Amino acid sequence: METAVAQPADARAHEAARLAARYREVRAATALLAAPLSAEDCALQSMPDASPVKWHLGHTTWFFETFVLAAAVPSLRPYHPQFRVLFNSYYNAVGPQHPRPERGLLSRPSLAEVTRYREAVDERVLCWLAGPPPAADLLAVLELGLHHEQQHQELILTDVKHLFAANPLRPAYRPAAEAPRDAAPAAGPRLGGDAAERRDAGGAAGARAGEPTPLRFVGCEGGLREIGHAGPGFAFDNEGPRHRVHLEPFALASRLVTQGEYLAFVEDGGYERPDLWLADGWTWRQGEGVSAPLYWTRGEAGWSAFTLRGVAPLRPDEPVTHVSFYEAAAYAAWAGARLASEAEWEVAAAEAPVDGEFVESGRLHPAPAAPGPGLRQLFGDAWEWTRSDYGPYPGYAPGRGALGEYNGKFMCNQRVLRGGSCATPRSHVRATYRNFFPPTARWQFTGIRLARDAD
Amino acid sequence: METAVAQPADARAHEAARLAARYREVRAATALLAAPLSAEDCALQSMPDASPVKWHLGHTTWFFETFVLAAAVPSLRPYHPQFRVLFNSYYNAVGPQHPRPERGLLSRPSLAEVTRYREAVDERVLCWLAGPPPAADLLAVLELGLHHEQQHQELILTDVKHLFAANPLRPAYRPAAEAPRDAAPAAGPRLGGDAAERRDAGGAAGARAGEPTPLRFVGCEGGLREIGHAGPGFAFDNEGPRHRVHLEPFALASRLVTQGEYLAFVEDGGYERPDLWLADGWTWRQGEGVSAPLYWTRGEAGWSAFTLRGVAPLRPDEPVTHVSFYEAAAYAAWAGARLASEAEWEVAAAEAPVDGEFVESGRLHPAPAAPGPGLRQLFGDAWEWTRSDYGPYPGYAPGRGALGEYNGKFMCNQRVLRGGSCATPRSHVRATYRNFFPPTARWQFTGIRLARDAD
Amino acid sequence: METAVAQPADARAHEAARLAARYREVRAATALLAAPLSAEDCALQSMPDASPVKWHLGHTTWFFETFVLAAAVPSLRPYHPQFRVLFNSYYNAVGPQHPRPERGLLSRPSLAEVTRYREAVDERVLCWLAGPPPAADLLAVLELGLHHEQQHQELILTDVKHLFAANPLRPAYRPAAEAPRDAAPAAGPRLGGDAAERRDAGGAAGARAGEPTPLRFVGCEGGLREIGHAGPGFAFDNEGPRHRVHLEPFALASRLVTQGEYLAFVEDGGYERPDLWLADGWTWRQGEGVSAPLYWTRGEAGWSAFTLRGVAPLRPDEPVTHVSFYEAAAYAAWAGARLASEAEWEVAAAEAPVDGEFVESGRLHPAPAAPGPGLRQLFGDAWEWTRSDYGPYPGYAPGRGALGEYNGKFMCNQRVLRGGSCATPRSHVRATYRNFFPPTARWQFTGIRLARDAD
Amino acid sequence: METAVAQPADARAHEAARLAARYREVRAATALLAAPLSAEDCALQSMPDASPVKWHLGHTTWFFETFVLAAAVPSLRPYHPQFRVLFNSYYNAVGPQHPRPERGLLSRPSLAEVTRYREAVDERVLCWLAGPPPAADLLAVLELGLHHEQQHQELILTDVKHLFAANPLRPAYRPAAEAPRDAAPAAGPRLGGDAAERRDAGGAAGARAGEPTPLRFVGCEGGLREIGHAGPGFAFDNEGPRHRVHLEPFALASRLVTQGEYLAFVEDGGYERPDLWLADGWTWRQGEGVSAPLYWTRGEAGWSAFTLRGVAPLRPDEPVTHVSFYEAAAYAAWAGARLASEAEWEVAAAEAPVDGEFVESGRLHPAPAAPGPGLRQLFGDAWEWTRSDYGPYPGYAPGRGALGEYNGKFMCNQRVLRGGSCATPRSHVRATYRNFFPPTARWQFTGIRLARDAD
Repeated sequence: METAVAQPADARAHEAARLAARYREVRAATALLAAPLSAEDCALQSMPDASPVKWHLGHTTWFFETFVLAAAVPSLRPYHPQFRVLFNSYYNAVGPQHPRPERGLLSRPSLAEVTRYREAVDERVLCWLAGPPPAADLLAVLELGLHHEQQHQELILTDVKHLFAANPLRPAYRPAAEAPRDAAPAAGPRLGGDAAERRDAGGAAGARAGEPTPLRFVGCEGGLREIGHAGPGFAFDNEGPRHRVHLEPFALASRLVTQGEYLAFVEDGGYERPDLWLADGWTWRQGEGVSAPLYWTRGEAGWSAFTLRGVAPLRPDEPVTHVSFYEAAAYAAWAGARLASEAEWEVAAAEAPVDGEFVESGRLHPAPAAPGPGLRQLFGDAWEWTRSDYGPYPGYAPGRGALGEYNGKFMCNQRVLRGGSCATPRSHVRATYRNFFPPTARWQFTGIRLARDAD
Repeated sequence: METAVAQPADARAHEAARLAARYREVRAATALLAAPLSAEDCALQSMPDASPVKWHLGHTTWFFETFVLAAAVPSLRPYHPQFRVLFNSYYNAVGPQHPRPERGLLSRPSLAEVTRYREAVDERVLCWLAGPPPAADLLAVLELGLHHEQQHQELILTDVKHLFAANPLRPAYRPAAEAPRDAAPAAGPRLGGDAAERRDAGGAAGARAGEPTPLRFVGCEGGLREIGHAGPGFAFDNEGPRHRVHLEPFALASRLVTQGEYLAFVEDGGYERPDLWLADGWTWRQGEGVSAPLYWTRGEAGWSAFTLRGVAPLRPDEPVTHVSFYEAAAYAAWAGARLASEAEWEVAAAEAPVDGEFVESGRLHPAPAAPGPGLRQLFGDAWEWTRSDYGPYPGYAPGRGALGEYNGKFMCNQRVLRGGSCATPRSHVRATYRNFFPPTARWQFTGIRLARDAD
Repeated sequence: METAVAQPADARAHEAARLAARYREVRAATALLAAPLSAEDCALQSMPDASPVKWHLGHTTWFFETFVLAAAVPSLRPYHPQFRVLFNSYYNAVGPQHPRPERGLLSRPSLAEVTRYREAVDERVLCWLAGPPPAADLLAVLELGLHHEQQHQELILTDVKHLFAANPLRPAYRPAAEAPRDAAPAAGPRLGGDAAERRDAGGAAGARAGEPTPLRFVGCEGGLREIGHAGPGFAFDNEGPRHRVHLEPFALASRLVTQGEYLAFVEDGGYERPDLWLADGWTWRQGEGVSAPLYWTRGEAGWSAFTLRGVAPLRPDEPVTHVSFYEAAAYAAWAGARLASEAEWEVAAAEAPVDGEFVESGRLHPAPAAPGPGLRQLFGDAWEWTRSDYGPYPGYAPGRGALGEYNGKFMCNQRVLRGGSCATPRSHVRATYRNFFPPTARWQFTGIRLARDAD
Repeated sequence: METAVAQPADARAHEAARLAARYREVRAATALLAAPLSAEDCALQSMPDASPVKWHLGHTTWFFETFVLAAAVPSLRPYHPQFRVLFNSYYNAVGPQHPRPERGLLSRPSLAEVTRYREAVDERVLCWLAGPPPAADLLAVLELGLHHEQQHQELILTDVKHLFAANPLRPAYRPAAEAPRDAAPAAGPRLGGDAAERRDAGGAAGARAGEPTPLRFVGCEGGLREIGHAGPGFAFDNEGPRHRVHLEPFALASRLVTQGEYLAFVEDGGYERPDLWLADGWTWRQGEGVSAPLYWTRGEAGWSAFTLRGVAPLRPDEPVTHVSFYEAAAYAAWAGARLASEAEWEVAAAEAPVDGEFVESGRLHPAPAAPGPGLRQLFGDAWEWTRSDYGPYPGYAPGRGALGEYNGKFMCNQRVLRGGSCATPRSHVRATYRNFFPPTARWQFTGIRLARDAD
């Protein structure tokens, strides 16, 4: 988040008005994502890493209540005295937390009650924004809260996908046959829209599989470069400070690795050859019995994948997704390549438009790369595992207080991912954005872009 | 269950009519138990030993569909092809089972869908019973299904209690202040009724604690006795054959151990003295960090307990419940006594009326013993741990086929409990009834009756 | 152990002299068992259930020092202040214990030091026995200690076998080719001797496999019988009180189940058929991936077994051993039979001579049954799993103090085994002897005798 | 390791002679380290991360046999056919491995047998070196094997320390009172020597605690710098290629954090404040119940530490050691500083002499920093945790074949440590040396040097 400096009142009033509109958009987009789900769907938790949708709905609301309203309107009583604990994710400075693995044991508060909670907090936030110009630092926290909520929008989709995949009835979040919806407001996830139509009329479950565009390696200059966020516009604290790095020349693949390419790795015995794997990756693979990406199944009629639009045959031209860092690294070794560092990725993506397959298209699955020159699919489709450990940039220090826990304390045992996915809101991502997950994580929309040292 | 022999057609028609009425009662009683619960309440699973209420509703229905309808009306198509797996508990002869610890991952089928499943099967069963006189062996299976459903009625209450106890909001299944309902038909759980009023107007949450009736030991003759079921009337297969056992003279306590008495054990350091505990019990106590019965909490205002009617202060005259076999045995050692064998218990209870605190009273918690001579609280209130391992009676052999798996395969690592509880339907229990749970189980309404060798 | 009553001094002196001779024999027999082992062999622990041989050597010595010498000669200083903790197995009344799974982390005290400890305690015990007639109760504890040491003699062999089996070099405790030793004094394990020669000149590793004697069922009368120890002679406290039990008529198999018979069960898919297994047994089998008795291996040349005399082809006529209770019960179900209750076994064995394959023969593996009428192999060869839970006999109460922990606190979750094994000293076992292990235990010499209800 | 290029025969002969002398030194130093240990000491394994000393002795020998002799003298028969598996650590390309957690189950081969194995391989290696000039690439592998053996020399000490610490008798590897030995040849560990005398006559167990030298921060220039190994002299493959990095100006603490300083952190509640800890670190701390460095104990007389010379009171001026990365990072946060990156450390240490407290001094514990200007204790004393993830340098690629597994496959989930320790042979370490361990590792001699951004 940005540190706010003193601003004149009318600038703050203008900012408040802008954020009020944005607040309405983002909050509505969250509700739209939950709309196809029943109260039962929203209450269940399929593993400790995932949370019930209802919890996401409450937690994002708790964020505004705790970090904005409580500071802005100290006289306000909390909506419910126990929500402070129930919906606290990991902020030790706020106090104790309901245990993460037990979020799925909460049939109460009901989904209806959590919806009322959202409405009550929305009313209070909008009332506060409509009043005297708020302090700039609180507006900055409000904006952080909106980006935070967008992160949870993506988690709602990935967590529901994981839950539905555990159900032998294999429910579809959105039926394959359902036509994309009309465009929703630009800020939020428009479930359906032109992007999907442009590239793939058949939807994720469509069985017509084309040939992928050829894979090329695109050279990039090395030398002393700059990465990290600076200047206006929102960014998380972990994206800065902007700083210099020295890079050797390198090359990036023109697009993501496809399901067809990854299947060749599987069929070549890639999961049986320890020489391709990192030592921890091999241990993980053996311990978990992994032999294909998450959600892939081999049946009599060949391979298929479980998607948010139901089970569908594997399309060879769609990007592979739901692979761990270990799988991504093993694939790269098999392909005679490597993963990019996050600095390489950012340097290559710095000038690219933020364009691609995002949640707004309603496709909810990575789409085949469109033909064309240069680097495709940098944004959207699938988060790209980098070889970089998630650590602090030079000069980085977490902020004080609870919000200092937002990013900094996770800087160990995680790998950086870049570029966003088909479940990311388009307005949420940028070239400096640093996502991070442990190397074993597979339930996010994670994918692979190959890299090489320059010849 | 009893093996059926050939009966004339009119006897079978009469039996079919009797069972049809009984079927309606039992099925309605189940629905009544689920009525206070939301779809979210019914979907969650708080531990592998417990199941979601929705699963109980489906499984009991599956039992009739699988073991009665499929044999009675072979042309019937299954209601849903995957329910055969989803709602199979442990019958390997029927086929694979959805993993028990993952019963709580099923948001679909919805509660509404499961309710429709119940209605569809009910219609088919009643239609079949109204037709030509069914074969006697199928009627026997139907009756088994009704007793099976009553077992799950009790589990619905204990499993919801466990779920609600894990929720920091501590929801009450039935509010403490709610007046008992009017009497329901005798066969099913009447939630509310005279029993509760007769003994305890205050309900479980009532804070007025009286003195318990004095504890006496009632001597019982030894010698060559008979136990086990014989004769007409339903019984599970594990209750027979009736057979002779030789007993030394013994004495049983006149009533269950009360919460006040158990609290004295706690406060005397009973949980800190390994000499009172079985070796496995001590290991369990240390590993789990147990220091009081399940659902007891010590606060600033003293001890309280979570009940199906909410959190209430401990009443010293109510029977202690939710203790493991290990706790029961340690308490008995502390009290200079022991637990009864199941044969001792059955001999002592053989002539007693099946009277006590059952689910029909709506109290949903053990009640203080009424004064009077003889052995009180033999039935209802709390299942009484015996010292007996759950094993086969001499001459017992499990039946062939899937229903042979009902009882026999569990005859290892379990202890027998006798007498029923406040969550048991009155019509479900009898003196020969053998309940069984592992020695660590605490989420059932389990209690303690002391025994002694005769002087 | 027997409670001692006051005895005149000369009776006590006589008893002291008898016990001194016996003490020398038993202690020497232990040393003889450890003689083929290096210090390294004696230091290692292959699983928490097993102990290093060095620990057995120390613990049995600790028993005499703690329970006899400390009471007999209070002025004696302990041999080493920390041995009280290090060599305490499970006596909470004595004080804390070195954690059982960490017994294999003790390279110090060295084997040489433990041997000195043994010698020092031996000297003190024998000096005390040679002095003024000791109190009868201490003599009783000394005798208990000797039987205790014999139990650990058997454990030394089973624990070393488990350790060696984990070593890919598959060391032999005693080479297959080694000739049996000359007879040792009758009281202790004579490693080698006539028993082995009589029945099987080839030793355990001998490959000449004959046909087993035919399996017959021998009928036994039911009715009111007596079991349990009474009268003179040592017995553990759990063997009493002698009491009446009522039995239905039954039949026992004339000999133990052989390896050939068990192999037929394996090859008939016995490990793949859940209908044959207890529910907990099936879970265990699947969780552990068990598909044959412990120490069996299938190679290109067929099945072989690891024995204390090295790896040898399976002999079909030798009794199967190293099976769990679950395997024994599944085999019995497959064979259309059941296991005996401990009362049935004891009634049948009450009059039989204590004759069979014991540790003294030096064979160290069960031997084929000799032909002949009646029940063979009741004693020695392999401990026979019974269907009986290990519980207290009517009227049993553990003694006070630490030695009350010897047996009573284990009366839960264990099954009774009867008859002794090829690793048991002949003088250690009798018809009333109750051994007990959890149903999963396989590293003891455990075997199967079938039983049936009388026709 | 360095890739060897073609060399003339006399250069190779000269190199062979040099390496033969070096081989004798290193192998003798290993034997010297094992000399104080009994066969029992050498056989035990206290945790999966540690190995028995006997295994280290065998594995280092196996390395020469497998990677040098088998290639150099193909006609040689292996010393023992099963040693290929038993002593293979993690080289999948060589074949299967005896499971790491079961290295402590091998009483056979005996220590004597492993010693004979060492002697036999030594004879063959030296014979080969004395023959016709060997190929340069094999000489390079031999040199790698010597550095490999030096790594295991350090592990012998840390693994024995861990084992002895688990023994309640708290054995000393070397008695505190024992005088340091005379100097040994420079290449190997001289157990004892001038370094110890110079700095600390009292030994690790000495109780005279002085004041540490004041902690200063020494500024270092940033800019475009070079790190990594290049040029002649041995280095591991992970130390290269040498490459440019851009650094911001920074400062390093003049010495390691002392035990006294760390104790202040402990006593200030550092282990109770989640705000100081990385999220994974806090989870680790709570899960393991960590509240002080490994081997620290709080007694009535204050804090003491278990060392290789026995238990000794904490000396405040000695460097703290046996802390995890998480503890190091939490301490740094508490101290208002951070850890250095590995590039910062290497740039700062590039010109420093490799001087400090190494294994040759025989102290076997970090020593107080000597007064003086500049950066002290860069080498020896304790490995310094850096904030850097262990990853590949730009342009790095692991070699082909089994030796390519030496370093590259571990480049995930590990943190880099720099500088060596009091258990490292002096000739083993250099400024470019990259050690690595998971962030939870504590049994190595790990310590803390603080860093800061430049003002």
